[in-house]
Amino acid sequence: MSAKTPQIKLGLSMAGYGYHHSAWLSPDVPADGVSSFDFYLNQTRIAERGLFDMVFLADFVTFSMIDTPKGVNGRSVRGGSFEPLTLLAALAPMTKNIGLASTASTTFGVPFHVARSFASLDLLSGGRAGWNVVTSFQDEEAVNFGSSAILDKASRYERAEEFVDVVLGLWDSMAPDAFTYDRTTGMLFDPKKVRALDHVGKHFQVRGPLGAPRSVQGRPVIFQAGASEHGQELAARTADVVYSVQPSLAGAAKFYEGLKSRMAKYGRERDDMKIMPGLLPVLGGTEAEAQSKFRAMQEMIDPLVGLRYLSALFGDLSDHPIDGPVPDLRKDKELATRAQIILNLARENNWSIRQLYQRTAIGNTHNVVIGTPEQVADVMQAWIEGRGADGFNVLPALSPVSLTEFVDQVVPVLQKRGLYRTEYEGTTLRANLGLPEPLSAH
Amino acid sequence: MSAKTPQIKLGLSMAGYGYHHSAWLSPDVPADGVSSFDFYLNQTRIAERGLFDMVFLADFVTFSMIDTPKGVNGRSVRGGSFEPLTLLAALAPMTKNIGLASTASTTFGVPFHVARSFASLDLLSGGRAGWNVVTSFQDEEAVNFGSSAILDKASRYERAEEFVDVVLGLWDSMAPDAFTYDRTTGMLFDPKKVRALDHVGKHFQVRGPLGAPRSVQGRPVIFQAGASEHGQELAARTADVVYSVQPSLAGAAKFYEGLKSRMAKYGRERDDMKIMPGLLPVLGGTEAEAQSKFRAMQEMIDPLVGLRYLSALFGDLSDHPIDGPVPDLRKDKELATRAQIILNLARENNWSIRQLYQRTAIGNTHNVVIGTPEQVADVMQAWIEGRGADGFNVLPALSPVSLTEFVDQVVPVLQKRGLYRTEYEGTTLRANLGLPEPLSAH
Repeated sequence: MSAKTPQIKLGLSMAGYGYHHSAWLSPDVPADGVSSFDFYLNQTRIAERGLFDMVFLADFVTFSMIDTPKGVNGRSVRGGSFEPLTLLAALAPMTKNIGLASTASTTFGVPFHVARSFASLDLLSGGRAGWNVVTSFQDEEAVNFGSSAILDKASRYERAEEFVDVVLGLWDSMAPDAFTYDRTTGMLFDPKKVRALDHVGKHFQVRGPLGAPRSVQGRPVIFQAGASEHGQELAARTADVVYSVQPSLAGAAKFYEGLKSRMAKYGRERDDMKIMPGLLPVLGGTEAEAQSKFRAMQEMIDPLVGLRYLSALFGDLSDHPIDGPVPDLRKDKELATRAQIILNLARENNWSIRQLYQRTAIGNTHNVVIGTPEQVADVMQAWIEGRGADGFNVLPALSPVSLTEFVDQVVPVLQKRGLYRTEYEGTTLRANLGLPEPLSAH
Repeated sequence: MSAKTPQIKLGLSMAGYGYHHSAWLSPDVPADGVSSFDFYLNQTRIAERGLFDMVFLADFVTFSMIDTPKGVNGRSVRGGSFEPLTLLAALAPMTKNIGLASTASTTFGVPFHVARSFASLDLLSGGRAGWNVVTSFQDEEAVNFGSSAILDKASRYERAEEFVDVVLGLWDSMAPDAFTYDRTTGMLFDPKKVRALDHVGKHFQVRGPLGAPRSVQGRPVIFQAGASEHGQELAARTADVVYSVQPSLAGAAKFYEGLKSRMAKYGRERDDMKIMPGLLPVLGGTEAEAQSKFRAMQEMIDPLVGLRYLSALFGDLSDHPIDGPVPDLRKDKELATRAQIILNLARENNWSIRQLYQRTAIGNTHNVVIGTPEQVADVMQAWIEGRGADGFNVLPALSPVSLTEFVDQVVPVLQKRGLYRTEYEGTTLRANLGLPEPLSAH
């Protein structure tokens, strides 16, 4: 492959039984998956076989018991039964090269604990850890952490900015050669190469230092996904990897250019950040076969689960005929960006309520690509060459079967085109992502 | 063995390079151990070979940079580079039967997060998790968590009581058969068998439920070590295992009886709690050989590290002649219980400062037993039969070599006497400890 051929980066997002809201109903999916370590281990090993840069755990702190619409409770789960850091730590000794990334909230978390836990995962895994910085915006989560209402968006980002700086500072507690282990002098570490943080800010006071040696990858890789103005500025300054939701190349390229052009003012090169939109592949031997597979998946969605998915975006629609048009929605509450995108799709296509959830409850507003392995590879190549992406966060509809298909069928096509590695470049997540090692303050 | 022979329970405490404050100076100890996953994995596998009930990680959140006395900084570390939950999670898939327990603080922690992380470890490990409830009392730790001063003792215990109740409540979110995974009805779980906690207390408001199935051992095992009045009441009400510091059988038996007799008022049987004092064995082929090994260990203590250890208890003694008597100590600050015990030992034995740290910086005030394997087994048997202990928290002086000696030499003697298992009784920590399964509120 030529040095100029861009290399696609790949992440696997492990969420629930897959990105199909009723995935667990499929006989191809282990019914007890989300409570089974082997379910996650299996997916991670398949992704490692496919030379993925990393697996990623979005974190759903909340176990929803909301029965809207009536009768839906018990019919699906978001997320799984595991706390992400412990799950990734258990995956570490069972894998060799693949990165291990997860979400941790700056709104509900404690910076010293987050810094310490991810540093520990990084040390355990030989430099394969990644932290996805999220500010959390759901009241549903807040109720588990003693807050009756959540911080407003500006305060959340103010706290997040300070939180990230504290964590980065703690990760930089030690020079690379701080631990000397020298029995002849009796010096286990050199105190001049360890520094306290002595942070005193608006939200946190943290002295440090952190008692972990500097990571072999410098520090864990920072992930972010916030698409708001605040989120993009934080990402431009601090993120190594950005996950995004972009259903079209045009939108993706605009977002890509917009975000990368913000980096210079923070003294960063454009290549110092990898932008990886979500990609949900639906594969078939022919395009028609793939389309028919997708239709079968749509029909598998439990209608109550489909309505619940919509109700989180628009409020309860269960009083309206499910095969009738999407009703005019309340205007007293501003719709989230994602909800507005979905609503626009419905209006443009004259979808019924059923069609709306069927089309969007698989992969939500992510880029759903339905076709042959060559066609999926074509789309990926077009996005990379069209500067809409540096790689993709692969979202299996059904886990692990959709992933296995992707690894067995699409990865070889990408490799043949010289767009994807045939072996891991390094032993750390940062090395595989092709990111520069962060400078040390020492 | 007769049904009446009491069965000794054994835990391994993994702290730093061992319970000798300069353990890392020994050529028998891996110099980079505390930053090496293999160091912990190796110890855990040796303990599992020795059929131990569990390994235990005390948690040292602070990386001490205090240079008192001058020049000591860099000469030792407490604890290690790992965050305990991630370390234990990584040990889970590499082991089969041994329990995995660690400390988490009720002063600096968040109950929902603690409940979730230990539930996750429990699920990962097939029911082998344990949580050691500590209230934390060190300003050194507080400075990493935004508090300039720590709560007073009464407030700490008030918070701890509520914290434990919230965690226990969250662990009881689901009935054993809440997850149904029934594709024919479309019901993944039965919402009637999942309950929110809806806790509103003085310190916490937590709605729940926790999204993990009920543990196969009911819930993680609760450990405690607080010996104060408050600590003992909390233990009598909630602890499954109590670790204690008891240098003599007489004191241990008094503590044992005192604590067990508090249980009835909480509706608990005496056998529902296992009391396990610390035990630091120093083994030799003959008693003389063991004594000479202990002297060699004492001489290996870095004098600055010895003085630092004393300074944490008594303040800086480095202005006094190290081979002179222990000076009169300031009376303006009340000595901690442990410091008073150590000082009494010094006075009774006319120890010099050097002798004081040499004698107590190996195993501190725990029960240090120096002798042949038979002699160590004799002491253990006497403590069990004298109702001073249900088992022991084994503290290796040098890790892992002191543990290996114990497993190879003492365990067979205990087995021959019918005092110790020859195979694991069950697959969960609770089953091996012989504890009853906790009732479900469902």
